[in-house]
Amino acid sequence: MTRALKRTQRAWAYLSRVAEPPCAELAALVHRVGPVEAAERVRCGQVDPDLARLTQARRGIDRSAEDLELLDQRGGRLITADDDEWPTLAWTAFHGAALQGKPQAKPPMVLWALGPARLDEITERAAAVVGTRAATAYGEQVAGDLAAGLAHRGVAVISGAAYGIDGAVHRAALAADGITVAVLAGGLDIPYPAGHSALLHRIGSHGLLVSEYPPGVRPARHRFLTRNRLVAALGGAAVVVEAGLRSGAANTAAWARILGRVVAAVPGPVTSSASVGCHALLRGGAELVTRVDDIVELVGRSGELAPEEPRPTTAFDGLSDTQRRVYEALPGRGAATLDEIAIACALSPEQLLAPLAMLEVAGLAERRDGCWRIVRAGSQRVAATARLV
Amino acid sequence: MTRALKRTQRAWAYLSRVAEPPCAELAALVHRVGPVEAAERVRCGQVDPDLARLTQARRGIDRSAEDLELLDQRGGRLITADDDEWPTLAWTAFHGAALQGKPQAKPPMVLWALGPARLDEITERAAAVVGTRAATAYGEQVAGDLAAGLAHRGVAVISGAAYGIDGAVHRAALAADGITVAVLAGGLDIPYPAGHSALLHRIGSHGLLVSEYPPGVRPARHRFLTRNRLVAALGGAAVVVEAGLRSGAANTAAWARILGRVVAAVPGPVTSSASVGCHALLRGGAELVTRVDDIVELVGRSGELAPEEPRPTTAFDGLSDTQRRVYEALPGRGAATLDEIAIACALSPEQLLAPLAMLEVAGLAERRDGCWRIVRAGSQRVAATARLV
Repeated sequence: MTRALKRTQRAWAYLSRVAEPPCAELAALVHRVGPVEAAERVRCGQVDPDLARLTQARRGIDRSAEDLELLDQRGGRLITADDDEWPTLAWTAFHGAALQGKPQAKPPMVLWALGPARLDEITERAAAVVGTRAATAYGEQVAGDLAAGLAHRGVAVISGAAYGIDGAVHRAALAADGITVAVLAGGLDIPYPAGHSALLHRIGSHGLLVSEYPPGVRPARHRFLTRNRLVAALGGAAVVVEAGLRSGAANTAAWARILGRVVAAVPGPVTSSASVGCHALLRGGAELVTRVDDIVELVGRSGELAPEEPRPTTAFDGLSDTQRRVYEALPGRGAATLDEIAIACALSPEQLLAPLAMLEVAGLAERRDGCWRIVRAGSQRVAATARLV
Repeated sequence: MTRALKRTQRAWAYLSRVAEPPCAELAALVHRVGPVEAAERVRCGQVDPDLARLTQARRGIDRSAEDLELLDQRGGRLITADDDEWPTLAWTAFHGAALQGKPQAKPPMVLWALGPARLDEITERAAAVVGTRAATAYGEQVAGDLAAGLAHRGVAVISGAAYGIDGAVHRAALAADGITVAVLAGGLDIPYPAGHSALLHRIGSHGLLVSEYPPGVRPARHRFLTRNRLVAALGGAAVVVEAGLRSGAANTAAWARILGRVVAAVPGPVTSSASVGCHALLRGGAELVTRVDDIVELVGRSGELAPEEPRPTTAFDGLSDTQRRVYEALPGRGAATLDEIAIACALSPEQLLAPLAMLEVAGLAERRDGCWRIVRAGSQRVAATARLV
């Protein structure tokens, strides 16, 4: 690494800690004068009053050398606008969103990252799949099935590494050798939740861990909410598998809507409080997804449409209404004369001839001794349909 | 009963059997010349060629006397346009529908009825609640809960008396002392399905059984489909609880849409094939219903809106973003100085004073020996929220 590059990295790392992200004022300064000069000015307090106030508490703290060394030891990297890997396209969603007066609707300034997957490639074909920590067995099963299916279809899954749905998503994607990304609400060195330490390690080894927070920063409530905007931005769609009425997943869905991403939800039993948030999203216009194909259609290349769900077909599908009516007029057991059938279906005997001939050709009826009867021919399917509805 | 009235009843009964309903040509003749004259003309074959063809097979059959006697013995009645009970308003839905080129989209000519409930009163506040015969325990439970809830709210439930969802609907409405109507696809004297004989008897004793078919007519596939239009027409909304992709319930929903009725569906597990039809309806724009209130809102008087689902609230709801950020910056255990807190939340010490005062007033934080700490105060709810995403 050149001396200049090292200096730039140090500046990014310093800036990443000096204000609580996202900080529009700081981002504007960096955009104007570059990271090195911006870091220098912040350090000396030579910035306008707003930014001075926002950086006052931490401007004297510079842990950039230790942070970068820790990152390096773990095999991680700092991803910034200087890098090819910076997912510029994903962040464009924030341009429109900024207009809606959401101060948090800003891209990150840097991302602390760990893992072999490349972020720019991932975002070309990715879905955020999220949900409540208080997941049911149903929700975890569906989350796992969807994540595994997406992995098989080459779609990366983005989630938040929480217990419940998020965990099921990451685990299933890893098990299916797919790409999975966990966006954290604290430093990469702080495994949270603690019970997911091993899972986070596996994601960092096979997928990607990213965070806009430098090492040592602890997750806090407002950081989860801030983090959720990145989960939404990195996926082409946000799929909520299970969510209560107030949950982080509903917040991620709200971010996805603000960012112009497709919001989708998986329905569930109306008797389950874990699906109440999903049903509220569906009422609000979210796409209803039940299968992997539905999600691929939402995030895939244009024309990658979900195939129609197969519909059961029966021997009756080809019949006209009159032919069906005549078939229905045949007795369930035994045979009937032409006149009896005519009365049963309110058609004249002459009107019966063509339909009966068609039914005979279709193997559904037969004539014997001048009477007509149903042919069962061991076809349970036909019999089942005749009883249908 | 006067002699003239008896003659008119006989004419209606004869006309009800002479053509397969609904028969637009026959209805037009009755509308032009009245039932008695229409019956006479049909009997003699003095009708235009189209109607002659449609009545040819059965015009020589007159069972009207026996049919009416059987009905009378059972305590039933024939409801026609001559009666106050005729639900004229419900049938107006067919006027617009006829334009859509659906030959079946016609009101019934007569209804054979049995039961104490009055059809015109029922249709003022009723919901069709239908579903698959291959119901799951989940579906039957939800169907029963909804029907019982509707009964308590004074909404009549219309269904088709089939096994599965329909049966659960009728049973629950009866058990809750509500009004339930079964629209049959055959004569009132033919209990179908046979396993629902006792249920049908109870509906006829406490609610209402109706059919456009005279006694002795057996249910057939096309009659179920024709019947479904009446289920849809009699309810202010059609609610599908569970349905496969091809099911009678989906057909009833299609009729409801044609008739301008609200179509609603109950979501279910995406792992259940019994909910596939409901999810398809929801994708197609059906209203998502999860509670009785949702249905009452659809069929009730204007202004009878479903209350918002209660949202969990916490001690944090009243806090500003800055106050929350300061609260989050307090250490999980022990206390912190003003400077430590300032660094943790990236605010200046002066900016902390007002938020900390508010947190103290709210009982969420306290100052001791110049340091600040979180107040747990045995409030698990607060602690739980602090951990919340």
